[in-house]
Amino acid sequence: MSSAFTFKLLATNGGARLGEIETPHGIIRTPAFMPVGTAATVKAVYTDQLAAAGVDVILANTYHLMLRPTAERIASLGGLHNFMRWEKPILTDSGGFQVMSLAKLRKITDDGVHFQSHLDGARYELTPERAVEIQCLLGADIMMQLDECVALPAPREEVERAVARSLAWAERSKRAFEHYRGQGLARPGQALFGIVQGGIDADLRRRSAEALAAMEFPGYAIGGLAVGESPGAMLETLAHTVQWLPADKPRYLMGVGTPVDLIEAVARGADMFDCVLPTRSGRHGQAFTWGGKVNLRNARHADDPAPLDPASGCPAARDYSRAYLHHLVKAEEYLGAMLLSWANTAFYQQLMAAMRTAIGEGRFAAWASETKARLGAGT
Amino acid sequence: MSSAFTFKLLATNGGARLGEIETPHGIIRTPAFMPVGTAATVKAVYTDQLAAAGVDVILANTYHLMLRPTAERIASLGGLHNFMRWEKPILTDSGGFQVMSLAKLRKITDDGVHFQSHLDGARYELTPERAVEIQCLLGADIMMQLDECVALPAPREEVERAVARSLAWAERSKRAFEHYRGQGLARPGQALFGIVQGGIDADLRRRSAEALAAMEFPGYAIGGLAVGESPGAMLETLAHTVQWLPADKPRYLMGVGTPVDLIEAVARGADMFDCVLPTRSGRHGQAFTWGGKVNLRNARHADDPAPLDPASGCPAARDYSRAYLHHLVKAEEYLGAMLLSWANTAFYQQLMAAMRTAIGEGRFAAWASETKARLGAGT
Repeated sequence: MSSAFTFKLLATNGGARLGEIETPHGIIRTPAFMPVGTAATVKAVYTDQLAAAGVDVILANTYHLMLRPTAERIASLGGLHNFMRWEKPILTDSGGFQVMSLAKLRKITDDGVHFQSHLDGARYELTPERAVEIQCLLGADIMMQLDECVALPAPREEVERAVARSLAWAERSKRAFEHYRGQGLARPGQALFGIVQGGIDADLRRRSAEALAAMEFPGYAIGGLAVGESPGAMLETLAHTVQWLPADKPRYLMGVGTPVDLIEAVARGADMFDCVLPTRSGRHGQAFTWGGKVNLRNARHADDPAPLDPASGCPAARDYSRAYLHHLVKAEEYLGAMLLSWANTAFYQQLMAAMRTAIGEGRFAAWASETKARLGAGT
Repeated sequence: MSSAFTFKLLATNGGARLGEIETPHGIIRTPAFMPVGTAATVKAVYTDQLAAAGVDVILANTYHLMLRPTAERIASLGGLHNFMRWEKPILTDSGGFQVMSLAKLRKITDDGVHFQSHLDGARYELTPERAVEIQCLLGADIMMQLDECVALPAPREEVERAVARSLAWAERSKRAFEHYRGQGLARPGQALFGIVQGGIDADLRRRSAEALAAMEFPGYAIGGLAVGESPGAMLETLAHTVQWLPADKPRYLMGVGTPVDLIEAVARGADMFDCVLPTRSGRHGQAFTWGGKVNLRNARHADDPAPLDPASGCPAARDYSRAYLHHLVKAEEYLGAMLLSWANTAFYQQLMAAMRTAIGEGRFAAWASETKARLGAGT
């Protein structure tokens, strides 16, 4: 276990960055895509399959885990890594975003957020301090401050108020994290990221980024995007925001996205990503490939002996015919969701690995335009 | 690929038998338990996991596969082994039993059975000849004759009529199989089993077994049990029936059962078994262990760091805590069904391996009484 959280910027190519984050559970090669393991499992995928696919880090959801099985229980069972048998880095969100999208009867004040569990209606309070405590109990390598994320479009006043509140919560989160570190609940090398808010308002984004940068977080998330704005506005806001963030710290664009989104965001300087798309699509019969998205429900695959990708290193993509995958999806068999979630997870890692190689070789722009054309082909 | 179907009886110990069946796709060690791969997949389990767990043979369901994706399609894709990536032996049922339990508007005559698909209402006819043809198209190593299975209790006349019809169908199935063998649709080493019927009527069972024995099948199934009669009546009927079957041919007790059922049936001379219990129970949060059944839904497991069985060779049983399994089951995560189906499949194989060892060492009765006591312990 390493005892220092560090980020090494190894190369840049246009806006794109190649780097390495060192965490207590190992290295994260960036740009990195984090599969989502909401409830302490990346749905339908074994952790061995994640590691073999090249996954360096997964994301887990504080909101789900605080409700069930609870952070205290996971701590008493040796932490989230041990609980779910994943030895590499874990990043946790703060829970705030999912309280706003999933919980019932939520009420947000300057102090924090009150809500009722979507599972059983039980009442909870999540403050910046409690969100950090939960993430320390889980044993996350990278934690997120509690923030307020506004669905877009939204009036400027509302976005501005959320920025102010999120900055106040960033301060409190940082203090809480230092407190828990002093207590030994947070261990050396674990890190807390601040989250930039501000909707698609350039001025608010700058204000949020600069204020957070002044607090000297070891990394910065860009939140409040992919929440209703156009893809163009998202990318423009991203490109604008990164200018006001320190170049020597990792930048995590939350909740993004499709393969093309990832390429565009890497081109604009984002280093880390998470999204449910590869696993959720897998459960719905869709595969991501270098030739674009493949809908295995489509009858055209019923007699096709070809695999998703004969050149893939992933057995799910390489060794099973499209005809068999089509059959499994139509028959609603577990194995269909299992194979497609695995194949998609592996494809996303191949995509990130290809980006890292292209950046390292100084040909990211050419690679990106060629790859976007291939991905757009679809099938 | 072997070109002869053979059965070697290696040892007997009381009524229990140790043997080996040679098939075109390899050896089946008996007593053997066959996991059920209804729709060309053992639900939620990878074929690699089956093989590593010691599975020699799986069962697939003709009824499901004839409807979707169809036997002709599987044949054109290289057969069922290739389609589902399972290189070891496959046994298929005839489809008759599942037509009677799943299909709509079924009508049975001396010629065969007409029914409507439970999927889309399409009309089908299944005759003894067609059932063999489908199983040849699938490429099964061991096929079953079409038979008529009566739910118990039933009037004697009804059982008697089903026996007579099943015997007539046995003759027709055998002729059809020889015809397809002449055509090359069935290949050397593939085998067709006859099925003994007769409810729990000793006289009818004897009549059915003797008539089938006279037809000289390479193996015999005992059908029409575990369909409503008491466990005692099932075992008594089994013990009675095997007397009238040739000792040098394998005996397959269809649709059985619990771990204790398997021990009792092996003690009475049965060699092969299939049942959905290990995988279905796995999908419902139940694990089979040497200490008995474990219901992972139970809150008592929520804080238990112990695995299902630290001494198991199966990673699912050995490497994950009961607390984690409990969490996955409560959260209805795919991984819960995956791990428990895998662990149960492995446990059933460990049980069969232990029986084979005990028979070979001439201590089956002692092993059985000790093991039944352990299994009865429950938790």
